[in-house]
Amino acid sequence: MILYTFPPAPSPQRVHIFLKEKGIDIPFEQVDMMKQEQLSASFKSINPRGTVPALVLDDGTVVSEVVAICRYLDAVFPEKSLHGSDPRQQALVAEWDHRIEMECMMGIAEALRNKGDAFKNRALPGPLDIEQIADLVPRGLKRIGAFFEVLNEQLADNQFVTGDDFSVADITAFVAINFAQWVKMSVPDELTHLKRWHAEVGKRPSTQA
Amino acid sequence: MILYTFPPAPSPQRVHIFLKEKGIDIPFEQVDMMKQEQLSASFKSINPRGTVPALVLDDGTVVSEVVAICRYLDAVFPEKSLHGSDPRQQALVAEWDHRIEMECMMGIAEALRNKGDAFKNRALPGPLDIEQIADLVPRGLKRIGAFFEVLNEQLADNQFVTGDDFSVADITAFVAINFAQWVKMSVPDELTHLKRWHAEVGKRPSTQA
Repeated sequence: MILYTFPPAPSPQRVHIFLKEKGIDIPFEQVDMMKQEQLSASFKSINPRGTVPALVLDDGTVVSEVVAICRYLDAVFPEKSLHGSDPRQQALVAEWDHRIEMECMMGIAEALRNKGDAFKNRALPGPLDIEQIADLVPRGLKRIGAFFEVLNEQLADNQFVTGDDFSVADITAFVAINFAQWVKMSVPDELTHLKRWHAEVGKRPSTQA
Repeated sequence: MILYTFPPAPSPQRVHIFLKEKGIDIPFEQVDMMKQEQLSASFKSINPRGTVPALVLDDGTVVSEVVAICRYLDAVFPEKSLHGSDPRQQALVAEWDHRIEMECMMGIAEALRNKGDAFKNRALPGPLDIEQIADLVPRGLKRIGAFFEVLNEQLADNQFVTGDDFSVADITAFVAINFAQWVKMSVPDELTHLKRWHAEVGKRPSTQA
């Protein structure tokens, strides 16, 4: 298999932290998103969606959603699963990973992609021309702020997002919180549980640059 | 465990089809979303998010995302998994289930919730007051139409969304396509593969009312 990636961007970052947590090395190739190489004809011949990351399996199957790439790698390298150790944990990991993506990542994407020239006509990822909608910028910021509070409350009684074990939900949340800085949102000082957790996760070897 | 549900709504529908496909019976209680019971104080004391479906486990854990409810039930009742039989299939199921939700379900939600009085200040599900944005209506419709074409192409060479086996991705896609009728979008006649698949899935016992 080979991973097409661009480590500075948030979605690829999730995969790289996952790989380091698992201790897996796989071959990868850079696709420079700053130069929009993901939209080039040559990359689209590999991944027609024009999105990064993309994991190409040995039989040619392309896997292009972070959740799916991580599920694949956890199935092929089952040691130290990052998707929960029992049915309840598995449910909580799926629940929180999804919520972080839908509520926080989507909020950031709304705030980031709906202004400025860099995302003109690309207000959503993927091949569709999507015009920017200015009202989505404050809506996105509101969603991020609200989700920080939700996550802070969840972390009041939990070491990690879903309890005692580090999981993909922690990876998604960690990357989301760093990504929020792109739209100038950072965790307010009063959200002490979220700040404690973010500092702890930031010290793990997997999250070092 | 007990499932709080409202079968006419699309997210609960996904869980009910899943249960029927698995042949599982679990106790459930109706929450009338037409009367906005999901936002009542009494329901929020059960699920603070105010969303339906919600699966409450015997230890009190609340699972409130469809993806997480289905993961839990597939882990507890492992026979006839609907999440793929090998790592490649598991990846494809996660990939397509996520895409259908992000690209099609989100498009429908945009088109549905951003006009009319029923969703005034509730343009997103959950507890936040979110104002409607009229420009999201045509954007949502555009996303639905584009995704119908993507799914049609995927089904050209596959009996089901991810290949030979019926999975949660088929459930999500089937519910999404029916849900699209709420915003007057139906599958165009020329998308013959999608129409063939939709008719076939509509004959399964699990999808009968």
